[in-house]
Amino acid sequence: MQIAIDLAKSAWGKTHNNPMVGSLIVHQGAIISKGFHEKSGSHHAEINALKAFNETPDDTTLLYITLEPCSTTGRTGACTEAIIRSGIQKVVIGALDPNPNHAGRGISLLEEEGISVTFGVLEEQCRDLNLIFNHWIVHKKTFSALKVAMTLDGSLAASNGQSKWITSEEARSDVMTWRRLFPAILVTQKTIDQDNPRLTSRSSEAVFCPRRFVLNRSLKSLDQYMKYSVFSDEYKHKTTVVYGELASEEAVQKLKALEIDAWRIKESDHGIDMNDFFNRCAEENLCGIFIEAGAQFGTHLLEKKLVDYLYVYQAPKLLLDSDARALGTCRKTSHIDESLQMEGVIHKTFKEDHLVRGFIKKESL
Amino acid sequence: MQIAIDLAKSAWGKTHNNPMVGSLIVHQGAIISKGFHEKSGSHHAEINALKAFNETPDDTTLLYITLEPCSTTGRTGACTEAIIRSGIQKVVIGALDPNPNHAGRGISLLEEEGISVTFGVLEEQCRDLNLIFNHWIVHKKTFSALKVAMTLDGSLAASNGQSKWITSEEARSDVMTWRRLFPAILVTQKTIDQDNPRLTSRSSEAVFCPRRFVLNRSLKSLDQYMKYSVFSDEYKHKTTVVYGELASEEAVQKLKALEIDAWRIKESDHGIDMNDFFNRCAEENLCGIFIEAGAQFGTHLLEKKLVDYLYVYQAPKLLLDSDARALGTCRKTSHIDESLQMEGVIHKTFKEDHLVRGFIKKESL
Repeated sequence: MQIAIDLAKSAWGKTHNNPMVGSLIVHQGAIISKGFHEKSGSHHAEINALKAFNETPDDTTLLYITLEPCSTTGRTGACTEAIIRSGIQKVVIGALDPNPNHAGRGISLLEEEGISVTFGVLEEQCRDLNLIFNHWIVHKKTFSALKVAMTLDGSLAASNGQSKWITSEEARSDVMTWRRLFPAILVTQKTIDQDNPRLTSRSSEAVFCPRRFVLNRSLKSLDQYMKYSVFSDEYKHKTTVVYGELASEEAVQKLKALEIDAWRIKESDHGIDMNDFFNRCAEENLCGIFIEAGAQFGTHLLEKKLVDYLYVYQAPKLLLDSDARALGTCRKTSHIDESLQMEGVIHKTFKEDHLVRGFIKKESL
Repeated sequence: MQIAIDLAKSAWGKTHNNPMVGSLIVHQGAIISKGFHEKSGSHHAEINALKAFNETPDDTTLLYITLEPCSTTGRTGACTEAIIRSGIQKVVIGALDPNPNHAGRGISLLEEEGISVTFGVLEEQCRDLNLIFNHWIVHKKTFSALKVAMTLDGSLAASNGQSKWITSEEARSDVMTWRRLFPAILVTQKTIDQDNPRLTSRSSEAVFCPRRFVLNRSLKSLDQYMKYSVFSDEYKHKTTVVYGELASEEAVQKLKALEIDAWRIKESDHGIDMNDFFNRCAEENLCGIFIEAGAQFGTHLLEKKLVDYLYVYQAPKLLLDSDARALGTCRKTSHIDESLQMEGVIHKTFKEDHLVRGFIKKESL
């Protein structure tokens, strides 16, 4: 199953709004066929594996799939039917269909045909492959993930805002991997002003540029836009400015003159209405967005539970400065149980740094 | 070597001021002899393994030791001599002698006799076995370790001081393991007032009570001492109050009347002079002390680099309260490089919680 998971990852970030899926066929003790889902509209993973399988199935033949096969005839035909037709009698499945209305249906259909099905093998890893899809397919909403980097004592920046670099190159390279996964990225104008980031995913293999959103409520800093990478590089057509409905008409005109794509979003009591923004993302079929935030915006997103998922990168260093930029408002807690909770937490270490990631429990805080 | 490490750990916390060491002999492909160092004054691990070895060494015979054998004749005779006498021709060593003046000498002596020596096998784990001893033997100073528990955003307690419980039972049980390792523990009177802890190490096997120090600079709360566990339980003779030289004579008399062991320590600009306290610990042959601190005392210890080692237990929850108790003073940093750095960092996860531990880099901050 681990090999099937790695196969699925061959299409890392390329399958939206479909899931990543890997499949392989073991016959007489050897892997003789492999398949993965390449992109939306292409064959499903198990179909690719079955196509490459030229033997006559026997008692030793096992089909592995990271995700429960679909039972509905979509663009590519139901996978359960193809499996049944193949004559394979043993199927091993990682994760169930994330849609509660479909979960288990593919398995039942196979079992009804007398096929032996084992499921839940490396289930957690198989499910983790599709953080974005699992959310999108159930809620039809954009999966929003917040990433912050901090010192071990919780500082996101020194007291003057300086934040380069808290984490090591290895940890920052992991951030690049997540940027490659998400179809869109969001930062605030403050981050653009401070760091002038490219917001691309750069690896030894290639450069990928996600759809880039810059939150600029009242359209500040427009005069300097041309010096910023996101508005002037070769991917500038992938940059969208997100501004509030209260931005001045003059600024809106100035922005228009710059020929930069822009979204006008409703305002709430706290600035731009993020739910309205996420809804617009969903309308435009963006299944996931990776938000890289500083202390202020990060706090807002967490406090109002506007994000579904959190990535916290930490370095084993302590700034020991109460005035440093940290998450938090002055809400006067009196019990640890007032904390925002996470669930489905996954830890990863990068030499001395580490990452804690997981879902934000919506009922907490 | 992993088996030898586990053997060494049979004496977890029982070997002070000696190291934990494990040893085994593999003969004709099987482990046929095991030994570990039980306590100061007992045989060294490799001597115990050699004693239990009744075969004639041949080409297949390998002696594993987690720590380089001693080359000086102490109470128990030099281990290098015993190894040479045994006729064993192949020795595998984990960590070198931590004393730079001795490191490698045991290996040289063996090699001079034609014995083949492999060293550095699971070196990091073998060295990590003896955090306390490695420090003590080189510096002749008490190894001081600070433990804090915090939320992912760096809160050690809610804004009213409430801190039960940040971490899970699994993480707290790991704290018990470290309490079992250190011969002494230190907390402030504030912690006693707030939580009335027992400061014992409780496991399914047994209860262990380390030497317990309570920092009470001006001897407050004496009236309530008899209701606190550390001053009234069956281990009360293991509790020592540490007070400052400026404590009132009246309070000192009151303390005397309570018949509680006490140390009078010099004062510095910041309260009790911790270096003076640590010196006194060293004089009394206490090789290591585990300090469980809240935000204020923890900050003091870190800021002044009074501790050698840091344990940070973290839970994946965010209090998001800027007024919560966190580490830090208002020192107005302007660069991340002003952080206190850690080195030799080790990560461990406990389901959703995790521990980051490592040495405080003395030249940083």
